[in-house]
Order: sequence, then C-alpha cells, then structure tokens
Amino acid sequence: MLKQTTVIKEQKIKLHSKIELNYQSIMLELAQNLIRKPSITPSDQGCCDLIGERLQAIGFKLEFMNQNSVSNLWAKRGSGHPVVVFAGHTDVVPPGQNAKWETPAFIPVIKDGFLHGRGASDMKGSLAAMVVAVEQFVAMYPEHHGAIGFMLTSDEEGIAVEGTRHIVDNLLERNEKIDCAIVGEPTTERLLGDSIRIGRRGSINCKITLHGKQGHVGYPEQLINPIHKSSRLIHKLSSKRWDMPSRYFPSTSCQLVKVHSESGAMNVTPADLELWFNFRYSPRNSFEKIKAYVEKKIIKYGLKSDIEWDHEAEPYLTKRGSLRKCVQSVIQKQCGIKPKLTTGGGISDGRFIKQIARQVIELGPSNKTIHQANERVSIEELDQLRQLYFKLLENLLLK
Amino acid sequence: MLKQTTVIKEQKIKLHSKIELNYQSIMLELAQNLIRKPSITPSDQGCCDLIGERLQAIGFKLEFMNQNSVSNLWAKRGSGHPVVVFAGHTDVVPPGQNAKWETPAFIPVIKDGFLHGRGASDMKGSLAAMVVAVEQFVAMYPEHHGAIGFMLTSDEEGIAVEGTRHIVDNLLERNEKIDCAIVGEPTTERLLGDSIRIGRRGSINCKITLHGKQGHVGYPEQLINPIHKSSRLIHKLSSKRWDMPSRYFPSTSCQLVKVHSESGAMNVTPADLELWFNFRYSPRNSFEKIKAYVEKKIIKYGLKSDIEWDHEAEPYLTKRGSLRKCVQSVIQKQCGIKPKLTTGGGISDGRFIKQIARQVIELGPSNKTIHQANERVSIEELDQLRQLYFKLLENLLLK
Repeated sequence: MLKQTTVIKEQKIKLHSKIELNYQSIMLELAQNLIRKPSITPSDQGCCDLIGERLQAIGFKLEFMNQNSVSNLWAKRGSGHPVVVFAGHTDVVPPGQNAKWETPAFIPVIKDGFLHGRGASDMKGSLAAMVVAVEQFVAMYPEHHGAIGFMLTSDEEGIAVEGTRHIVDNLLERNEKIDCAIVGEPTTERLLGDSIRIGRRGSINCKITLHGKQGHVGYPEQLINPIHKSSRLIHKLSSKRWDMPSRYFPSTSCQLVKVHSESGAMNVTPADLELWFNFRYSPRNSFEKIKAYVEKKIIKYGLKSDIEWDHEAEPYLTKRGSLRKCVQSVIQKQCGIKPKLTTGGGISDGRFIKQIARQVIELGPSNKTIHQANERVSIEELDQLRQLYFKLLENLLLK
Repeated sequence: MLKQTTVIKEQKIKLHSKIELNYQSIMLELAQNLIRKPSITPSDQGCCDLIGERLQAIGFKLEFMNQNSVSNLWAKRGSGHPVVVFAGHTDVVPPGQNAKWETPAFIPVIKDGFLHGRGASDMKGSLAAMVVAVEQFVAMYPEHHGAIGFMLTSDEEGIAVEGTRHIVDNLLERNEKIDCAIVGEPTTERLLGDSIRIGRRGSINCKITLHGKQGHVGYPEQLINPIHKSSRLIHKLSSKRWDMPSRYFPSTSCQLVKVHSESGAMNVTPADLELWFNFRYSPRNSFEKIKAYVEKKIIKYGLKSDIEWDHEAEPYLTKRGSLRKCVQSVIQKQCGIKPKLTTGGGISDGRFIKQIARQVIELGPSNKTIHQANERVSIEELDQLRQLYFKLLENLLLK
C-alpha cells in the first residue's frame, strides 16, 4: 500500500514536471516569436494580434483601441469581481549601435540558459509568461471567479500618450473597474521577486537654451560665453540634494542628459548652449517646487534663456492591501525570499493604470540589461515568473 | 614775390591732393580685386600672383615658397640694412551663413564710405595699403637706403604651419636678417592708430573627452553621468583667475569653445562628454604650468579622460627700440593721437616673424567687424593707413 502511494506520488511529480516543461517551451516559443517582431516604439508589428489570437482562443473578448500608429488591446474574460489585469507593452527601445550586439537584436537566440534579443527582459519575456500563465490557469480552472484582463500597448517606451493612457481613458468613460493590476515591467535586481514596484517616482523634463554673445577668444571682454555662464547652473543641478528619501521613495534625482554648445572653431566662442535634464521626483517634492527652484537659480545666475517644461509623470503609490499581501506571500512561498517594496527605476504605465485600478503592482524579471546592447533574460527566471503569475491567479481568483 | 610763393604753394597743395587722390583710387581698386578672389584659408586664389606682379614691376625680386596647397611669397627690393618688411596674409575666414550678409561676401561693394566684403579689414585692405604705399615710395625715392621686403602667405587664418613659419624657416636657414617688420593685422579699436600690437599672447588648445557610464535616468546609482562629472572642471576653467595683468599683457584667459554630451533620449544619460577650450596666456604663465594645473584638477575631480594638447603659439614681445619709437611718432604726427601699445587680440604670424626680426609691430585698420558677417573697412581709414605706411618708409629708409 505504502509502495503504491509512493509510486502514484512519483508518477504525479513526473506528470507535473512534464506539464511544466511543456508550458515552459510554449512560453519560450511565444517570447521568441515576439522578439522576432522588430516593434521599435511605437510600432507593434503584429505583437498585439499574436497575443490577441491566443487570448481569444481561451475565451477572451478583444477590443482593439488603436490610436493613430499605436496598437492598443483591451481583452477580458469572465465577469464580476475581482477583476485582475495583466498589463504590459509590446514596443521596445531601438537596438542602438549594431556593432555592440553579439547576436542580432531581433533574432532571438538561446545561449547558456539565456534568451537573447531586444525586449527579452523589457518586456516581451514577461508578456509571454503572462499569456502562458493565463492559458494554463484557464485550462485548469475554466470556471474561475471574477475576471481576467489584458491591457497591452505599443506606446510605452516612447511618448506614451496614445497607449495605456488612451485605454484607461476609454475604460474610465464607461465606468469599468479594476481591482488588481500586475504590470510585467522588469523589477528584479538579482533574484526573481527580490524587488517589486508598489509605485513610481514622478518625472519632469526640462530643456533650456542659454543665450550668450559669440566672439573671438582673443577678445574675451567683447563676448558672453554661454558655456561659462552655464557652469554654476550645471554644477548646482548635478550636485544638489533635492530632498531626503522616504519609506518607499528614494530622494529626488536630477540627471543632465544633454549639453551642447559649439562654434565649430577653436578660436571662436559659441552663441548659445542647450541643456536638457530630467527629474525623477518623490511625493516629498512637486513639479511646482522644482520648477520654481530652477527658474530662481536661472535669474540668480543672470542667465538669458528660453525654458521648456514637460511634466511627464505624477508619482503614484499602491498602499498596503490584498494585492501587496498576495504578491508578497506568493513570492515568499515560491522563491523563498521576501520581496523588497520599491518605487525606483524609470516611469511606467503604472501611473495611468493607477487612475482606474485600486491596486497596482509591478513584477517582472531582471532589469540588468534593459535598454542596452545584448539584452537578455534567464530562461529559468522567466519560467519562475510564469509560475508566480499563475500562483497569483490561483490566489486571487479561486475561493 | 609773396603772392607768387602763395600761388606756388597752392599749386603744390593741389598737385599733392591730386596725387594722393590718385593713390587712394589705385589702392581701392587693388583692395577690391583682392576681395573678389574667394581665398578662404588656406587657398590663395591668385592673390600672391596679383601682388607679386606689381612688386616685380617696381624692382622686387620674387621668391615663391609654396608649400602643399599654401601660397607663400617672399619679395625683396634693394640691399643692405635696414631691411623693412611688410607682412600679411591673403587668406580669409569663411563667410559663414550667407543670410547674414547684406552684400555678397566676395563681391566688393563701396557704400556710405565703407568698402564691404570678406577680408576688407582682415586683411586685404591692409595689403592694398602696403603695396600702394611702397609703389608711391619707390616712385618718389627710387634710390632709398636699405631694403624693402614683403612676406605674404595664404595660411594664417587656418592651421598656419605651412605659411609664414615656412618662409621664416627658409630665411633663417640662409641667414637672412630683418630689422623691422610691420604686420598689417587690424589693430585699431576706434580711430586709426589708437592701438598697435607690440606682441601677442601665447595660445594653447585643449580637447578633453570625459568617459562616464551610460544608463537610464531611473537608475542613477548604476550610471556615471559625464555631464555631472564635468561640472566642477567646467566651473573651475571658466571662473579661475589665472594670473595678474602685466604692463603689456592682460591676464591669461581661458575660453571654452565646445561642450558636447548627449544620449539622444530624455531618459538616458550620455556615455562621454567632449570639452574643448583655448587659453590665451601671458608670459607670466607658460604652457607647462597651465597643462600641469588642468591635469591636476582632472585627477583631483576623479575624471576618466583622454586629453589632447596643442601648444599653438608662444607669446612674443617687441621691446622699446627704433621701430616702436618711429611708429609712435608717425602716428602722433599723422593722426594726432598717441597709440596704445598692446598685446591683446588673437594670435598672429608675428610670433613666427619675431624669430627672424628684431622688431615686429602690428598696425592695421579697425578690428570691429573681422571674422563676422558684413566685414567692412572705412575707406578714409584705409587711405590714412596707406599714408602711415608711406611715412614709416620715409622715416626708416631715408637718411
């Protein structure tokens, strides 16, 4: 009897392993097919169609909410509450200089346990993990509670005004409600699940043109050198401590992303200087405060300038609640680690989704190689992620 | 008798005015013919040939010392000492944006008492004044003492290594000696002769590339922003007082002429930064001192960099002597002002000529519009300059 039980248990484990291996290869194939599509932002290149077909096959109702050249897909299965939504983007950042890539950016290559290609970790890998996790979940629990949604766009890496924002506006208009949203952004630092995003900093872009007076280096008294005039401002922007970190937010950070001024000759000073910078700010600061500070300094330093502000993103935060708790416990059970709750990294579409969803969490693979040459994701990590998404569905939609 | 003397005197004055007017129009025609040749550095476009022909016609022996694409002319008339040399360049800086020119850069236009065109004041106007002054002098005093020389090149505004430097090297080799050199660079500030150069500052060019580590603005801890790293250096270079002015030299001045760093995106920091700057230094400082200071700061600020130095010019100074005295007294007599002895402005070929000539003075028209759109010279000023050059020859070569 004891022997028989052991045999059945062993058979069960074998079967389970076989099923899991099967889902892993299905997921890997989907991820590869997505990478093959050179969906440089805001182009979708058929990614939404590919995913949409698969969701439709398992009972999702599709709504394409395309806007100009941006592809947007809202897909839903089931009804009532809770509504659990997976959100993500199909677009990728440009590959940059080809010379730096060891394998072609848009040809997926499996090597040394990694899947290589632009978008592997940001975030076609996550998309494949979500889709296959849902396929597995629906196959096992066709009569699950509540509803599952997918919110996909091809406009996240770019200007991001015709993507998720557009879908959210549409859903808000018809009073649709989302209880939990899981965004597949790459949040992992070292080990899968070690860090999840429960919010994001706000973002401000600023472009300044400083005006000087061009002249010959031999007559310094007759010229106004915009590089010299800019030096105090550049020094201030790059060295100031903007605020103190809070429980979930690091300090506000300012990064200069462009400075350009040149006359074309070694003996002539330039007429103007261009300065671009970006703030990632915590809720301890605000767009108004930062803008006022910079403009005050520009006046103080006597700079003649044109300034262009772009308040790209407000900060957001998901407070303690069922989603945070569920994600934490699933990670702890599956990965054996306690996830760090953070708000670091870039901005994400979480800021738009938060307007319609009470709780938004971002959970995805390692962000080590995103936006770089030789972007890649560990296949083992991606498969673990698929299992985490699956377990989250079990925890949120079975009762 | 008294009446007769007055009549003769009046006739003499009339004749003199007529001769002068004649020389003025000859000079103006030559200046216009030179401007018509678009001799953008280091191209001569036949300027040396045009001047050479005229000098040959009044007894000069011509030696073309062309080097690669640079035209160089050494012309001499007479023998023994003193050897008085007129030096200048036939090349001009590019006209820049045509839109800013009210008249075409290479079509001489006479308007409101000014001769307009690229090179009018730097220095085709001076060349015409020199040549016609010498023509007049030789016509009046064919048996003058000593010798007159012309040292012309088409490589002064550019790299300037195959021009005057090449002629001087050749003359040094055969032990030729020059007593007085008059360079036609535009030295006048307001009124002709108000300022002459008795030397020039040295010049140093430096190109630095600072290396950082590119990254996403959302992960400031993972990147090294070269703009931020550069800020202390830029601030130091543009605000430091390098030394105190001395009797003839202003303080050493550093001008940043280029700063460039950009990633191409608002959310990505750049990898490198390019910084170009130029020093104009007084004999109180030196190339070695300045280089050591900058390199020490680069180490102090922890900058990873590549540095390229170019010691473009040593400073030079012509001390009190016969030439300075003669130029001062001629200006005082002709223009009624006492010239300021200066060493300001850009570098000039004076630095090379000083190696072979005991005394070098630079005297030319207004420098207000040089290297700019709508370069022009006052015709009255240019004619006065011609008379100054003529009087200098009278003072130096008649005894």
